Amino acid sequence: MNVSPSESFLPEAQFIARFHAIGEERYHHKHPFHLLMHEGKLTRGQLQAWALNRYYYQSRIPIKDATILARSEDAEFRRAWRKRIFDHDGDGTHPGGIEKWLRLVEATGLAREQALRGDAILPAVRYAVDAYLELVRSATFLEAVASSLTELFSGKLIALRMDALRRYYPWLSGGLDYFQGRLTQAPEDADFALAWVVNHARTREQQELALAALRAKCNILWAQLDALYFAYVSPGWPPPGAFQPQAG
Amino acid sequence: MNVSPSESFLPEAQFIARFHAIGEERYHHKHPFHLLMHEGKLTRGQLQAWALNRYYYQSRIPIKDATILARSEDAEFRRAWRKRIFDHDGDGTHPGGIEKWLRLVEATGLAREQALRGDAILPAVRYAVDAYLELVRSATFLEAVASSLTELFSGKLIALRMDALRRYYPWLSGGLDYFQGRLTQAPEDADFALAWVVNHARTREQQELALAALRAKCNILWAQLDALYFAYVSPGWPPPGAFQPQAG
Repeated sequence: MNVSPSESFLPEAQFIARFHAIGEERYHHKHPFHLLMHEGKLTRGQLQAWALNRYYYQSRIPIKDATILARSEDAEFRRAWRKRIFDHDGDGTHPGGIEKWLRLVEATGLAREQALRGDAILPAVRYAVDAYLELVRSATFLEAVASSLTELFSGKLIALRMDALRRYYPWLSGGLDYFQGRLTQAPEDADFALAWVVNHARTREQQELALAALRAKCNILWAQLDALYFAYVSPGWPPPGAFQPQAG
Repeated sequence: MNVSPSESFLPEAQFIARFHAIGEERYHHKHPFHLLMHEGKLTRGQLQAWALNRYYYQSRIPIKDATILARSEDAEFRRAWRKRIFDHDGDGTHPGGIEKWLRLVEATGLAREQALRGDAILPAVRYAVDAYLELVRSATFLEAVASSLTELFSGKLIALRMDALRRYYPWLSGGLDYFQGRLTQAPEDADFALAWVVNHARTREQQELALAALRAKCNILWAQLDALYFAYVSPGWPPPGAFQPQAG
């Protein structure tokens, strides 16, 4: 990212506003697959495909967070960040986010084993999720942390989604614990990460890197829904070997 | 890959036949985007999008081959494999495959700089290509070599494509040197790699790993065309930030 010397350091409010502008433009709340979902226009098979494929993303979250944890030399940062791993992996008694997502998969009518095997997920979803892991491994630490800032926008999307799922797909309503948990977890996480990024982006160039990392993460989320839409909505062509919903 | 003890080592002819069966089912000669191309039904903007996005794949090929080279401890293997790097990078006087692909990009009416910048390629194409690099880096060496075996099938596809491009898109015909070169390079490379894989897969389990690597590579090629089709054919929704063909 080249920044000309005339481009000066962004004041905090302006820097934060640019993150929000990226979310407004690129976060997947605007994706046509989500719009169909929230209008009640997805079939059960399409929701199955979504839950199954998104499981791969969910299953990588604690690995992503452990990668970030492993790159931090600051105990205070690590103490704050490790919460995310607990949230997703649970404590062995209370289910974490991954277990709750498996219950959502089951609520769609698929066996949890199909999600755990992962052999029918879309290759394009796998590549996008793996690109996220690669980002947090090999970009700068600032970018790795900034890529988590999609959580700034997830609260609103999840609240909207829970209403829509309950209303249009009542047979799913036993599987919504994941979203209930995220309603409080995601804003806490995003507040911490945003404050950290604001304090640690010390030059305009670093600010631009952090903004680009959020755009990159939005692309990763968007690409997963593109793949789902292409395979299961229109034209409706899952690639060889991928999940095929049953007719009806 | 679990293979039960009752599954025995495949005789050479049967092992080779299974590679060809994978190609028949999963190689991208069957992808709807290629079918449209070969029927003369793509617009100039769609061919631009294809050339631009596929450039990212082309640009990673010598990196992929150098990664494989770096993993081999056998000078004889390395002497055979390094040819691929010469083929794509050229010798500074005679253009290699990458330079020839840039000329194809120019023949579509785009500036080569747009391909070199790479900022408008589809994120999903980038993720798929990067997944190929990750495969040759982190799978077993046998799988890395076996993943190249899509070249067993490329000769036929390229011959068909050159006819179709000359016939339906005559304005492209100054940009076909890349394919001309690959008509002789790809079969030589594939013959060497196939013989090597046949000789180095010493158990049924290794044979299955090699076959799975070819399937994985077919998925990587297929996913690139899925993304192109979704963004530029139907429904025709490039993601935020990606190349937008000019109208007309």
